[in-house]
Amino acid sequence: MADNDIYDLVVIGGGPAGYAGAIRAGQLGKKVACVEMERAGGTCLNWGCIPTKTLLKSAESYASLKKMDELGIIIQGVSVDFAKIIARSRSVSDRMAGGIEFLFKKNKVDYLRGKAMISAPGMVEITEGQDKGRFLKTKNILIATGTKMRRLPDLAVDGERIMTSREALAMKKRPESIVIVGAGAIGTEFAYFLNALGTKVTLVEMLDQILPVEDEEIAATLARAYKKQGIELRTGTKVENIQPGTSSVKMEFVKGDKRESVEAESLLLSIGVVPNLDGLLSRNVQLDLDRGYIKANDRYETSVKDIYAAGDIIGPPWLAHVATFEAVQAVNGMFGASEPRRVKIFPGCTYCVPQVASVGATEKKLKEQGIPYKVGKFPFMASGKAVAMGEPEGFIKVLSGEKYGEVLGAHIIGAEATELIAEFGIAMRCELTLDDIHATIHAHPTLSEAMAEAVAATHNEAIHI
Amino acid sequence: MADNDIYDLVVIGGGPAGYAGAIRAGQLGKKVACVEMERAGGTCLNWGCIPTKTLLKSAESYASLKKMDELGIIIQGVSVDFAKIIARSRSVSDRMAGGIEFLFKKNKVDYLRGKAMISAPGMVEITEGQDKGRFLKTKNILIATGTKMRRLPDLAVDGERIMTSREALAMKKRPESIVIVGAGAIGTEFAYFLNALGTKVTLVEMLDQILPVEDEEIAATLARAYKKQGIELRTGTKVENIQPGTSSVKMEFVKGDKRESVEAESLLLSIGVVPNLDGLLSRNVQLDLDRGYIKANDRYETSVKDIYAAGDIIGPPWLAHVATFEAVQAVNGMFGASEPRRVKIFPGCTYCVPQVASVGATEKKLKEQGIPYKVGKFPFMASGKAVAMGEPEGFIKVLSGEKYGEVLGAHIIGAEATELIAEFGIAMRCELTLDDIHATIHAHPTLSEAMAEAVAATHNEAIHI
Repeated sequence: MADNDIYDLVVIGGGPAGYAGAIRAGQLGKKVACVEMERAGGTCLNWGCIPTKTLLKSAESYASLKKMDELGIIIQGVSVDFAKIIARSRSVSDRMAGGIEFLFKKNKVDYLRGKAMISAPGMVEITEGQDKGRFLKTKNILIATGTKMRRLPDLAVDGERIMTSREALAMKKRPESIVIVGAGAIGTEFAYFLNALGTKVTLVEMLDQILPVEDEEIAATLARAYKKQGIELRTGTKVENIQPGTSSVKMEFVKGDKRESVEAESLLLSIGVVPNLDGLLSRNVQLDLDRGYIKANDRYETSVKDIYAAGDIIGPPWLAHVATFEAVQAVNGMFGASEPRRVKIFPGCTYCVPQVASVGATEKKLKEQGIPYKVGKFPFMASGKAVAMGEPEGFIKVLSGEKYGEVLGAHIIGAEATELIAEFGIAMRCELTLDDIHATIHAHPTLSEAMAEAVAATHNEAIHI
Repeated sequence: MADNDIYDLVVIGGGPAGYAGAIRAGQLGKKVACVEMERAGGTCLNWGCIPTKTLLKSAESYASLKKMDELGIIIQGVSVDFAKIIARSRSVSDRMAGGIEFLFKKNKVDYLRGKAMISAPGMVEITEGQDKGRFLKTKNILIATGTKMRRLPDLAVDGERIMTSREALAMKKRPESIVIVGAGAIGTEFAYFLNALGTKVTLVEMLDQILPVEDEEIAATLARAYKKQGIELRTGTKVENIQPGTSSVKMEFVKGDKRESVEAESLLLSIGVVPNLDGLLSRNVQLDLDRGYIKANDRYETSVKDIYAAGDIIGPPWLAHVATFEAVQAVNGMFGASEPRRVKIFPGCTYCVPQVASVGATEKKLKEQGIPYKVGKFPFMASGKAVAMGEPEGFIKVLSGEKYGEVLGAHIIGAEATELIAEFGIAMRCELTLDDIHATIHAHPTLSEAMAEAVAATHNEAIHI
């Protein structure tokens, strides 16, 4: 092997961490390869964020038709082509994944197809797939293999009776009824999507609230909205004895000492993720793990020199934007482009309707930590833009330090929550205070004004409530 | 008159400046009255921002139906109830104006109806309307009378052949064809609204670009989009010899030495505003003016002691959010609640489709001022969220100081531009750099990610282009 066959970096995994890390290395003029066993873009582009948002667009558009009459638009009749909805979602994924492949070329990233194994530090072998048999010698390795959907032992995922989100994204027909197990972001989004199109949805969560990581008041507001939309919610409930049949799946809901038999056409498991480590490490390579995830330090270094890891594979919060950020930081650090930054503050979004987004601490967490805080709240009902749009549901809540007024957390439920949260993200990252936000002129009429009003409400200075 | 009849503040005008100033004084525990000659909320709530956004929501919703098929939703037949669209718009205005009246009560603001005259410093007389004949003695006066739509001499506005935006907001029927004179925000928004519902629209602008205050590249992009939508654009063109008839209005378009005769069902004048000063000042009260607008210093004081002015009446930029900010600052200053802040950085929004929003300097302005700057650009075509939404039109452009990377201006055209601009607004207000924005983790998949990418693009570090 000649010297010019030696890579500066081999990235294993082509998802939001892997492709971003590889492209960043390319930007830095490094010789880099990215090995992906399925398709560039990873879960996010192919089986996660992007295709779900595409489905949600169809569902929201369909739901918007109910409000058309109020807006002065009269519609005679509507029908849904479910196959077309799914096909558009797949086609958007294909287009975006193709975009990543284009970016690989543009940034001179060698894109290799197959399953990779680290045979030794500095050595990657492709053990399966199109490029099977290739050995890559490299100075650095970045592991970005991510996660896959958790399944249940002894329960086969057949894609019809039993699905994870992956199968659900390629459903051939819309089930008439479904039980969704797990009310995190994925379960909650699928619940909206299917219910909006007419499926009878039961959303089950083992913990006491849907969206367990979100603020209690936000989750309670979403729960009310979901019930109004016709979604059945079961919190504090486990699902046991799942029995798939030919045309339906039977199960038991267990809450405390009560058991109830339930039947539905399909069951969707959205009960978290497990790390993709299978076949990655040869016997010669032992990396320190933490609960199954690779341990990485503040420079994203693993316990073995020149092997880095970033993204979902180093553990929670399992968010695409965090993964991308980590990988870029890892690459900047390994090549001395800049000091790698740690992930501290990051937003979380759920694309349900109304949307939910947050950054920083919840009230519960601040109470647990004994941090004195103030609350500023503003309802969208008092926002001219929200009323003009016909979407007055929800509110903004901002939590700030009692003494200095620094933003400690922000929680939004309502229209465009997932876009609005960006302002609070930058406020927290740059340690801005309530006064900084209040002194900023927000455009009228926008939803973003409501953020300044929520901030002002902390000291009873909001104008519109 | 007993001492308790003496007001701490009388606010003249109940628009975004006036009502906000009055409510703020109420929050500070002051005895305050607000005199309004029409309805609380002023032009913004009743004849401007809010009712236009309501109309635009209907137009956008109608336009969205064309994309439904692509989203897998099949619609059999559609018709438009134009009267209902107008009625909803009026009803949203009524609701919001009622909200202001409620806030007056809550904040103990005396709400008086009529036309006010400052008879002397410390004395306001109501000369017309419901509360005609009342004299108010007051320590301070805040003038917030705003502006009204500019008309043309010798051209009667009849609300059918010839309209300003005020009449257009209460149109009885949609004209089959219209010439809109003036392509600022108002003209540009009405052009979208009417064209989307089927009117043949010609938008005429005397200057060389539509949205003359916006960045040239943004305006050119909007012009292309408008042409594609079927709107006829005439820039560098004057309208002369306007002749209203019984069923149409005739006029001439003049461009250089070319004259062209044009006929349309209606003509909408959106050629700016003029100050509302008529009858406001008695002979005893002389205020310094600047081009017809009241001169105010950094504390919003006029040339006469204890008479303040804020909002449109003190001159450009004639934006509701600037007016509100100024009035709150004026009141904070007059009662010593806090040092009044000057307006420096403010966003501007046009709710056309695609939306346009900006803050800070344009490239043209930076060139004129000889300020060295860098450009970072990111197209929504490369945003996963924009593609998933089916709205990949437009881009984000951020201008930053060559040496320190401080944000000098930001210009957005595309979906939710008017919400996204908030982040750049806070960045400019708090003197954040590109690095601060780039170091902030933006949620995926959102449109707001594109802002971080535009920033990164300045140094060729964007991942997705």
